[in-house]
Amino acid sequence: MEKLQQLKEYFAEIVRLNYIRSLLSWDQAVYMPKGGNIGRSEQIALMSQLVHKRIKSEKTNHLIKEAEKVPNMNDIETALVREARREYDHAIRIPDELIGEISKQASIGFIKWEKAREKSDFSIFKPSLEKIIELKKEYAEKLATGPTPYSTLIDLYEPGATYSWISSIFTELKPKLIKIVKKLGASNNKPSQAVLKKKYDPEKQWQISIEVIKKLNFNFDVARQDKSTHPFTTSISSNDTRITTRINEEFLPACLFGTIHECGHALYQMNFMEEIHNTLLADGSSMGIHESQSRLWENIIGRSKGFWKFWFPQFQETFPNVLKDYPLEEFYRSINVVQPSLIRVEADEVSYALHIILRFELEKMIVEDSVEVDELPELWNEKMENLLGILPPNDAQGILQDVHWSGGGFGYFPSYALGNLYAAQIYNKVLSDIPNLRIDIENGRFSILLDYLKDHIYQYGKTYYARDLIKKVSGEDLNPMYFINYIEKKFYPIYGI
Amino acid sequence: MEKLQQLKEYFAEIVRLNYIRSLLSWDQAVYMPKGGNIGRSEQIALMSQLVHKRIKSEKTNHLIKEAEKVPNMNDIETALVREARREYDHAIRIPDELIGEISKQASIGFIKWEKAREKSDFSIFKPSLEKIIELKKEYAEKLATGPTPYSTLIDLYEPGATYSWISSIFTELKPKLIKIVKKLGASNNKPSQAVLKKKYDPEKQWQISIEVIKKLNFNFDVARQDKSTHPFTTSISSNDTRITTRINEEFLPACLFGTIHECGHALYQMNFMEEIHNTLLADGSSMGIHESQSRLWENIIGRSKGFWKFWFPQFQETFPNVLKDYPLEEFYRSINVVQPSLIRVEADEVSYALHIILRFELEKMIVEDSVEVDELPELWNEKMENLLGILPPNDAQGILQDVHWSGGGFGYFPSYALGNLYAAQIYNKVLSDIPNLRIDIENGRFSILLDYLKDHIYQYGKTYYARDLIKKVSGEDLNPMYFINYIEKKFYPIYGI
Repeated sequence: MEKLQQLKEYFAEIVRLNYIRSLLSWDQAVYMPKGGNIGRSEQIALMSQLVHKRIKSEKTNHLIKEAEKVPNMNDIETALVREARREYDHAIRIPDELIGEISKQASIGFIKWEKAREKSDFSIFKPSLEKIIELKKEYAEKLATGPTPYSTLIDLYEPGATYSWISSIFTELKPKLIKIVKKLGASNNKPSQAVLKKKYDPEKQWQISIEVIKKLNFNFDVARQDKSTHPFTTSISSNDTRITTRINEEFLPACLFGTIHECGHALYQMNFMEEIHNTLLADGSSMGIHESQSRLWENIIGRSKGFWKFWFPQFQETFPNVLKDYPLEEFYRSINVVQPSLIRVEADEVSYALHIILRFELEKMIVEDSVEVDELPELWNEKMENLLGILPPNDAQGILQDVHWSGGGFGYFPSYALGNLYAAQIYNKVLSDIPNLRIDIENGRFSILLDYLKDHIYQYGKTYYARDLIKKVSGEDLNPMYFINYIEKKFYPIYGI
Repeated sequence: MEKLQQLKEYFAEIVRLNYIRSLLSWDQAVYMPKGGNIGRSEQIALMSQLVHKRIKSEKTNHLIKEAEKVPNMNDIETALVREARREYDHAIRIPDELIGEISKQASIGFIKWEKAREKSDFSIFKPSLEKIIELKKEYAEKLATGPTPYSTLIDLYEPGATYSWISSIFTELKPKLIKIVKKLGASNNKPSQAVLKKKYDPEKQWQISIEVIKKLNFNFDVARQDKSTHPFTTSISSNDTRITTRINEEFLPACLFGTIHECGHALYQMNFMEEIHNTLLADGSSMGIHESQSRLWENIIGRSKGFWKFWFPQFQETFPNVLKDYPLEEFYRSINVVQPSLIRVEADEVSYALHIILRFELEKMIVEDSVEVDELPELWNEKMENLLGILPPNDAQGILQDVHWSGGGFGYFPSYALGNLYAAQIYNKVLSDIPNLRIDIENGRFSILLDYLKDHIYQYGKTYYARDLIKKVSGEDLNPMYFINYIEKKFYPIYGI
């Protein structure tokens, strides 16, 4: 037991250094004056170096080996040692030079990508994309945690997941989603977003977003909300979580649903059991599970009719010019418009996963097959036509839209779609365990749902891998039919089908 | 030269770690949710440990020794090595256990002091004050940089200064100040603060404080202002300085002059020459010189008639209910009321130094003579009567008013008064070098003064010790008569004398 304690204390410092780095990044995105940029990059790099050096030290190796010998560990102890091992193996398998090269290439790639997107000219981005692909292939080869290189990269975001497992799920999902999108598109009674594009006072949007998340039990004693260009959630400790939002005066959902989305991430981060504070387990099970919680609160709850039965009167009072005489039912329909579109981050709940499947298929080719980078824009456009039935008019709205690949973030995208699937399966189980939940939500009682998620998911942090966690929570493996059932049941009535 | 470069690079990391710690503290005071407190203390302690460990390492010793052998160093190089040596000697002379004990006792002392002040009961604070005095005596004995223990502690804030030097200055200052305060007190035409105690909209106070410091060339590209309970200035890098202010709806000077005061500190911090960025020289020459700059901008400029000739119309426009028909001359007098009072931080420009002399005399007794802690409240009150002619009605408004001693900060107070003296002497020189400066200020042209201070003081940071710097700037040693002349010339007319 003493060996475990030693490991835990040793890693507590590493976790603290990571938290400090998180504050440096949060401040950079939220409050830092622009002149601070160079100094801040140096400070962040220094913290990363300190962490890396500690993780790959002989001391780490020794402590892990000793801890691994401890018999009869419980789930949390097992996970603590497992995660320490993961960090150590990762750090010693990847040479420092490769880390440095990737980091350097990512900086260059970001600048090139920004410029390429601005000019909608893929050729500007192409050379650095080629370079980063080579580096990430080398990285995957050296790390080799998965059965194939792409699986290895996926494992960085979805520990334990593989290409073939995700592929089998997406293969089932894809034709069904395409069918549903088409069916909704053929409706004669489509909802409209027009009401959401009126003028909404920014200060009032900010205020009501705070009221909403307060009611969702976002605890301002251990968290805060600020504004930033790109919304995000980060933790500076298990009792200090920060979310950000952005406000668009002429599009109500940006701030509102953005805030609820980040609130979902934050509810996860702020409800770890105390035993795992300042450990490697004080994090989400996987990116997919994390995303399942942001999407559960944003989409399944935040875009449900019951939620708006409770909130709509207050929104009407806050924005009387626009909403005073607007019917609840129409408002509910307006926030649930499904429309194939070019940009992933603007996609609706239904078509979203198709954007991901496109990227998943391309990433597989990029990492494991010998596709020419030259061919990628064309392939992107072909897949857009096949999956969503629309053709990007240019590369800025096609292959150049996402930042991820510029830094070599292959393997990240699948998590977003897995999040939707996990969320639907988890929520299905919640409803069967708490039959009255819909009534609670209609009446603004959100803590019943939170308590359930805390008990079954949040408190454990990273203790269980996603595939085990979903089984523990719902009694079965991830099954995309829960998501399909959820969207059919929700969207057909909205579209009068 | 290579040896110097190595030393510089090595210390650049240490400076970065200190900057990171500054961000942790800034965030704690300004934005951190209260739940973050425990985690934050651990994070700050970790950064302090990292810094301390590096400074006292054999590598530091080696690099300094090598650098000290380099011939023909210029002023900046000499200072770089000198400061590295100071840090190293300090770190090896004070045992880690003593640092730990002082830090622990300071935490306890702060809590006890808060409680004692709240209940105005010195006996609550007494035991931990006794303890911290013992610890700081031990500390001074071990450090032994000055000719006497109290000089050693003073040297922490005023490098190179000694008790006897400061004492000789205060001895000259004291009777003159007492005389001036009495003379002003006997006037039949005293100004009144009443107009400052009307209602001033907090948001407008905030806005105009920002306009004022913008005009003073506070550069928001490399700095920002926020709100906090206790105003302060800190730097996260030489291109990222943060000031804070507080707003009192019924006392205009709190936000306004507080902001100008911190702006003065910030102008110093944001104007170091690039060569000393990320070095130990990227700081003020001493606490006293730093304070001279906050006070120069706050008092000598900010409470001058010329300043208000420029600003008053805008203040009248911003707060028409209170100031529309109020005469400029009376407003100028209202912000320059001199009145012996109990609380140091609320004291005026003239009587302020008397509060400091009281503390200086007591600190000497505490650190070097065998005064009983029991006797201190009585001694405090006696000195208050002698220096300011008023008797504290209780210890909360007497010996318990300041936080400094609770953490063992003996030796800090003199810097505040030295700041006033340095400021007057520097400003006297500026006026003789720039005869038209008063006209510039009346017309809102503040950059001429800033450029002068940048050239002569700010750019050098900590390159020159205060006693050398004042000679370099003004051509002579610190002479309190400049301050006496300044206040006589300013305040006698205000009081119709």
